[in-house]
Amino acid sequence: MRTTTDVFHLAIPVHDLAVAEHFYVDLLGCKLARRYPDRITLDFFGDQLVCHLTEGGPLPERPSSLYPRHFGVTFREAADFDALHALAVLRKIPFYLDSSIRFEALAEEHRTFVLLDPSGNLLEFKHYRDPRMMY
Amino acid sequence: MRTTTDVFHLAIPVHDLAVAEHFYVDLLGCKLARRYPDRITLDFFGDQLVCHLTEGGPLPERPSSLYPRHFGVTFREAADFDALHALAVLRKIPFYLDSSIRFEALAEEHRTFVLLDPSGNLLEFKHYRDPRMMY
Amino acid sequence: MRTTTDVFHLAIPVHDLAVAEHFYVDLLGCKLARRYPDRITLDFFGDQLVCHLTEGGPLPERPSSLYPRHFGVTFREAADFDALHALAVLRKIPFYLDSSIRFEALAEEHRTFVLLDPSGNLLEFKHYRDPRMMY
Amino acid sequence: MRTTTDVFHLAIPVHDLAVAEHFYVDLLGCKLARRYPDRITLDFFGDQLVCHLTEGGPLPERPSSLYPRHFGVTFREAADFDALHALAVLRKIPFYLDSSIRFEALAEEHRTFVLLDPSGNLLEFKHYRDPRMMY
Amino acid sequence: MRTTTDVFHLAIPVHDLAVAEHFYVDLLGCKLARRYPDRITLDFFGDQLVCHLTEGGPLPERPSSLYPRHFGVTFREAADFDALHALAVLRKIPFYLDSSIRFEALAEEHRTFVLLDPSGNLLEFKHYRDPRMMY
Amino acid sequence: MRTTTDVFHLAIPVHDLAVAEHFYVDLLGCKLARRYPDRITLDFFGDQLVCHLTEGGPLPERPSSLYPRHFGVTFREAADFDALHALAVLRKIPFYLDSSIRFEALAEEHRTFVLLDPSGNLLEFKHYRDPRMMY
Amino acid sequence: MRTTTDVFHLAIPVHDLAVAEHFYVDLLGCKLARRYPDRITLDFFGDQLVCHLTEGGPLPERPSSLYPRHFGVTFREAADFDALHALAVLRKIPFYLDSSIRFEALAEEHRTFVLLDPSGNLLEFKHYRDPRMMY
Amino acid sequence: MRTTTDVFHLAIPVHDLAVAEHFYVDLLGCKLARRYPDRITLDFFGDQLVCHLTEGGPLPERPSSLYPRHFGVTFREAADFDALHALAVLRKIPFYLDSSIRFEALAEEHRTFVLLDPSGNLLEFKHYRDPRMMY
Repeated sequence: MRTTTDVFHLAIPVHDLAVAEHFYVDLLGCKLARRYPDRITLDFFGDQLVCHLTEGGPLPERPSSLYPRHFGVTFREAADFDALHALAVLRKIPFYLDSSIRFEALAEEHRTFVLLDPSGNLLEFKHYRDPRMMY
Repeated sequence: MRTTTDVFHLAIPVHDLAVAEHFYVDLLGCKLARRYPDRITLDFFGDQLVCHLTEGGPLPERPSSLYPRHFGVTFREAADFDALHALAVLRKIPFYLDSSIRFEALAEEHRTFVLLDPSGNLLEFKHYRDPRMMY
Repeated sequence: MRTTTDVFHLAIPVHDLAVAEHFYVDLLGCKLARRYPDRITLDFFGDQLVCHLTEGGPLPERPSSLYPRHFGVTFREAADFDALHALAVLRKIPFYLDSSIRFEALAEEHRTFVLLDPSGNLLEFKHYRDPRMMY
Repeated sequence: MRTTTDVFHLAIPVHDLAVAEHFYVDLLGCKLARRYPDRITLDFFGDQLVCHLTEGGPLPERPSSLYPRHFGVTFREAADFDALHALAVLRKIPFYLDSSIRFEALAEEHRTFVLLDPSGNLLEFKHYRDPRMMY
Repeated sequence: MRTTTDVFHLAIPVHDLAVAEHFYVDLLGCKLARRYPDRITLDFFGDQLVCHLTEGGPLPERPSSLYPRHFGVTFREAADFDALHALAVLRKIPFYLDSSIRFEALAEEHRTFVLLDPSGNLLEFKHYRDPRMMY
Repeated sequence: MRTTTDVFHLAIPVHDLAVAEHFYVDLLGCKLARRYPDRITLDFFGDQLVCHLTEGGPLPERPSSLYPRHFGVTFREAADFDALHALAVLRKIPFYLDSSIRFEALAEEHRTFVLLDPSGNLLEFKHYRDPRMMY
Repeated sequence: MRTTTDVFHLAIPVHDLAVAEHFYVDLLGCKLARRYPDRITLDFFGDQLVCHLTEGGPLPERPSSLYPRHFGVTFREAADFDALHALAVLRKIPFYLDSSIRFEALAEEHRTFVLLDPSGNLLEFKHYRDPRMMY
Repeated sequence: MRTTTDVFHLAIPVHDLAVAEHFYVDLLGCKLARRYPDRITLDFFGDQLVCHLTEGGPLPERPSSLYPRHFGVTFREAADFDALHALAVLRKIPFYLDSSIRFEALAEEHRTFVLLDPSGNLLEFKHYRDPRMMY
């Protein structure tokens, strides 16, 4: 369990703020809080995500691995996991990995899918069969 | 606001699991959930932090910038921000940036300090003067 | 999500306080808080609705459009949406628009019905298929 | 008291969506949810505000009266009322009526200020001395 | 809705404290808080019930009517209503009125049963089909 | 502690429904839910109070004792107790007993005042120095 | 944090049920739930304590050490810790150890006092300076 | 019901800290908070469990009885009881008593299973058919 009034915050690099805003707000359904010339801040499933414009360099290629960096939300309720998956399909959000089961048959078994943002950031969403295993 | 029963989860690279466990559990006061040969999972202020053992390569140097990647918690209550700062001082946790004020005199003014984990990950903790600005 | 202890408040014009009270309290099941010669205040589904007596002028005609002004509640739970619809039918509250689906097949698909108060105010009640789309 | 998971929703007319977005998001600190060609939807202090583009007609003049239509939030905590007032001053949001006391010396005494959006909509924010009088 | 931390309190007359304690604690499953020579206080479904020893006079006869005085709990969840009814049957608590439907076919339709305590106090328990009708 | 979604309900006798409504709604600040020819129902500090019209008989005299029947609310927060006392003074609600301390110097010490409704019902409001003693 | 609706339960030995009931209910202010010939069950600060009658053997002597067995509550709020200490003093509950500070100057510094029940069970109550250290 | 922010704490004897940590963290899925040379502290289902190293003496034998000492959690939701049972089976945690029904056909009927930790401590987990009987 966690408090309702604190927030986790994460800063990630993006290569283009308008493209990031389109992905996170128009596609993923997050809410835009503030815009700056060099960053945007978002209400990401109740926590704060800050996309920093990281200039130069080529567009990130499709990451070769889910590890070591990714982020996302673990839903307590399967209905929330399923709703987000449906949203991603409906709005054609790019999947890095579609729904699969990890740690199958173990106590920490969970369903997961991974989305890919336009800057190469990986977003993993999970639902554990046993909620005590969410940590 | 956010739900009490979902969790944000973040995966980060660490160079040594025992060193990471010492930092996050013994120093920072997080709680250890699960240990694997290649990762540890933690209850990080109510959310899930997964430290992935990323082998090879030198120890990360002290990052040259807070940007573009860092993570942490924004506390609703100043007392929680202050308590964590006191803990960090007491337990001699390395500060990357000690307490300072950002966006001073603006609506989104907030206090912040940044800690440095042994693998070069940056942890920023914030307290906004106006809680509506937490996103 | 929203706080339990703050309230949204809305002031609307009504042509007759007794008629408004009958509609909102006796029919719609809201609760009367305070009566003044020129207004009544109501606990409207947990928020505050203030009906201001706006004298003169003919009774509003049936509005030609739902837009641009209307108000109401979006229920998280379908059961609450359905219960209110049943109440409206049972108590013969005038429908401006009976249950229909808006934005069908889109992520923001929702069910909606619209009631008409005696002063021509439009009350829309909604239930989204995906609760993240409630904003 | 009200539920945390339902939302009040209000539809209002605006004359220009970009101007409305600037007011509600950049100035007032609300969060943008969805953009359409003819409307924008916002997380307005935890409830939903929908700004409908109402074409034609001159810019609304400064309303001659607070009545009969206005909307806003009544804060349980004085600190939240004060924080919003400070935000409005800091960001030079137009005041229709600066802080005043209404129903002074009565049980329902409350502090209030009213802001004016670019389309002539009036936003009233309140704090009651006695929280039981919030309805 | 109501707060979790305030309590409703009710004082009622009983003719014998031991008999009352047996009824409320051993049969009805309430919790005993304090005992005095002239009263006992109970945690009655989360609120406070105080049974005052009212000496003299005959045992109250079975009340001729449910009106005008009775008290009890209205459960939001049917499962809680049913569980209490099952408890009353199992423990052979005297019913004044077994389960029936009141205001049938109206919006405020609800199920109800009434128990009789040894001092003639009537306890009514309700479950409304539409929770908005609980007041 | 108690649930937020169940309600305690109490039925009391009144000699005149309009007089009762004036007392409970206009003076005491409760909210009117439903009116019938023979009763009114109220949101009484979050619980349900039903005033049954009990015809015939003289107006109740001022009760000779607080015992054995009275009802009311015990507030967790002193501020709520004080606010209600201030309301009663401001609106000249009849006091049966003004603020006093009961069980002084004992663990269950509490402040209390008692109001008298027009039908002779006694309403006691309490605040315990030690919240664990609220039952 | 923990759920509001689950309970921790603990079974302890007592040498006399009436003596135990007097201690836990009349002195410590817990609430009696159920009585059996061989045990009593209590609402102990919101959790369940079951006192099992353990026959035979002498009255336990005053334990020579706080370790390894004791139980109690850690209060988030200092006011609750202080209120209980005041209650213990007022009602002359035997102290095994009066208020002291443990782990002084460390992050996990906390105040504590220990009470002794009539069967030799040790009850420790704590308040941590830093609430994150409550585990 | 109980608060979300206080915790119950229990101190128990263990014969080996590493063995205890393996049982409680790796098998039972609790979270490790702090390690000392002479104890470990755990987040045990939201409450605090402190395992004190009690040196000397043989390994405890399998206890001859569940009474008088054991501890555990009573789950409000059957799903949580079932999930933990499944975890215990999956991870081959030793059962002292597998699932059985106690007080069958009585109001306080509940399901229970008991696990045995490596130091001979008994952990009982319960689910009551009627949640009001959880105390």
